Amino acid sequence: MDLAQLETPCLILDKGKLEKNIKKMRDHLARLKVPLRLHVKTAKCIEAVRPVLQGRDKSITVSTLKEAEYFFSHGITDILYAVGIAPIKLEHIARLKHKGADIKIILDSVEQAQAVALAGQKLGVTFPALIEIDSDNHRAGVRPDDPLLIEIGRLLQHEKGVELKGVMTHAGASYECKNTAAIHKVAAQERDAAIVCAGRLQKAGLPCPIVSVGSTPTAWFAEDYSGVTEVRAGVFLFQDLVLAGLNVCKVEEIAISVLAAVIGHQKQKGWVLTDAGWMALSRDRSTSQQTIDQGYGLVCALDGKPLNDFIVNATNQEHGIIVKRGDSALVFKDFPIGSLVRVLPNHACATAAMFNKYYVVDGTTKIIDSWQRINGW
Amino acid sequence: MDLAQLETPCLILDKGKLEKNIKKMRDHLARLKVPLRLHVKTAKCIEAVRPVLQGRDKSITVSTLKEAEYFFSHGITDILYAVGIAPIKLEHIARLKHKGADIKIILDSVEQAQAVALAGQKLGVTFPALIEIDSDNHRAGVRPDDPLLIEIGRLLQHEKGVELKGVMTHAGASYECKNTAAIHKVAAQERDAAIVCAGRLQKAGLPCPIVSVGSTPTAWFAEDYSGVTEVRAGVFLFQDLVLAGLNVCKVEEIAISVLAAVIGHQKQKGWVLTDAGWMALSRDRSTSQQTIDQGYGLVCALDGKPLNDFIVNATNQEHGIIVKRGDSALVFKDFPIGSLVRVLPNHACATAAMFNKYYVVDGTTKIIDSWQRINGW
Repeated sequence: MDLAQLETPCLILDKGKLEKNIKKMRDHLARLKVPLRLHVKTAKCIEAVRPVLQGRDKSITVSTLKEAEYFFSHGITDILYAVGIAPIKLEHIARLKHKGADIKIILDSVEQAQAVALAGQKLGVTFPALIEIDSDNHRAGVRPDDPLLIEIGRLLQHEKGVELKGVMTHAGASYECKNTAAIHKVAAQERDAAIVCAGRLQKAGLPCPIVSVGSTPTAWFAEDYSGVTEVRAGVFLFQDLVLAGLNVCKVEEIAISVLAAVIGHQKQKGWVLTDAGWMALSRDRSTSQQTIDQGYGLVCALDGKPLNDFIVNATNQEHGIIVKRGDSALVFKDFPIGSLVRVLPNHACATAAMFNKYYVVDGTTKIIDSWQRINGW
Repeated sequence: MDLAQLETPCLILDKGKLEKNIKKMRDHLARLKVPLRLHVKTAKCIEAVRPVLQGRDKSITVSTLKEAEYFFSHGITDILYAVGIAPIKLEHIARLKHKGADIKIILDSVEQAQAVALAGQKLGVTFPALIEIDSDNHRAGVRPDDPLLIEIGRLLQHEKGVELKGVMTHAGASYECKNTAAIHKVAAQERDAAIVCAGRLQKAGLPCPIVSVGSTPTAWFAEDYSGVTEVRAGVFLFQDLVLAGLNVCKVEEIAISVLAAVIGHQKQKGWVLTDAGWMALSRDRSTSQQTIDQGYGLVCALDGKPLNDFIVNATNQEHGIIVKRGDSALVFKDFPIGSLVRVLPNHACATAAMFNKYYVVDGTTKIIDSWQRINGW
């Protein structure tokens, strides 16, 4: 079957590009002598992540317990649930632990540590926990110099039902960097924050076997991971326009795209209409903050070749509007009614989440497989 | 079961509010003596739309063929697929027609009309088609004064495999209005464009039995639908913050919300963190263009009471950041770790699409039912 036979919109994954992206990141981290704990929140698909889970890179990071359930059902046991724990979820996690999942949680408050200890005692399990560190003032976590770190560490170490396993941080600020030098700086800051906290815990007589850091931009530009025991990253699998804007990848390396059909020409306005709106592309507009604003996505020919002059400039639920950048006029006969285009995503996690499966190709328009995704919670 | 027992995030639908929203719109359109062709793209759920489909309001509008399949499987036959037709979808539509669905398509070009006629002849069906009119320069359609209208009309009328059923227009610009007077104007313009086109077709000796208009804002503020044969609207079922900003509803009438758990306090930043990020709330930021910017959503207490001072100011994939508007400090003990809040959506269609079911309540926190949604294509 060929892409030209699919009902639009749908999500296309280029297997060759995926494999190259995986190899690049694994080789890079191997050079830095640190294992990868893949974040599966981007792919949410066992077939897409299997090529990563080789050698020492067999652990994963999840963003939902549904991901934990799904990947555990596919034989992956070493799982970090990297969203600050809500006590209501501990019973679910205990069930997974009873089945054999080695699932670790994260937290950044005394209240959470106490709630986890209490739940562990009640449910007859010991929850392994990492303390989340705020390395970039961006989201969650304990500041690296906060006395709270030791207070939480002691609680986790001494209370029953919970166990101190280390520290973790995520430099989300890396996605907002304006240049590579800034990412280098955020990467160093991310690593340093984690190492400082590990040192503080150890100095207080507390264990810190896991020192976990990561984001795709910092992982890619990091130069030194001494003292770090694992790196978390996930978006690099597919790459996206935001990462291209950060020089983490080239546009040609982006492995997913949305297949769309041309459904209209608004000649006076210079618009080509397609049937891929925000329901397909997502509402993500993260490149709007970058040097090159890619609208709702960059348009490619059916064979996947980027048409760098064309972006999806606006969307409604099931409509996308393609325009040509700048002043030059769009040639409508280049986009006949019924013809197909592919749209590269701003943010791979957001766009992929709008679909429940990938149609898999490998450099051509021939469909070689289809892989299910698991969305929701 | 109670909301307090649910694993977060999840989607809550208040049945009492839904029913009041439905009654309000049906009564309004009954006064204007025009039937409603409900748009099911917001609810995507048979239980949620059943209270609408009474009396003469038994037809629906769909935004995907998956919606058409699903609602047809629940006995609804009169279906308008209101996205400009892509020829690749005609075989699917023909299959639905063969099973008994009276499914109508829309188009706005000679190329589409020809492709539809050809497909109809090949597949042995006659596709009923409406010509899409561009009443507000907003998206798709033929301008009301364009000679193309008659050209397409003649083609639909005279070719085999296709049949001219009328005209339709959607005043999407109504969502960008700055005040009620502007919506009144857009509503009149929407109606006038459709009526003018119906008149032009009839003057050219062509039939125009269907004159279809609508959007929730224009439907609600319309004062006269003479000459219009049906009104399309869907978001009014749930209402949302965008519609509240347009005075179509009050915040208290919004029927859906996302249940979220508090997972962190960033005291120096004044942030309460929850586990409902953009994966739950969607990336929709449509209120950013309105007088009151509601961030990624307005925060309510667990019982659904809006806390008008608090909004979700930023999101990551599985994190939401609640802040207090203005300068006054947030009192963290009002949002203890593990406590639950409900977040009202900017755009009901976008937020609901992130979930595959509704937990149904009726004014309290007691869960009285759960209803499935159908997403995707």
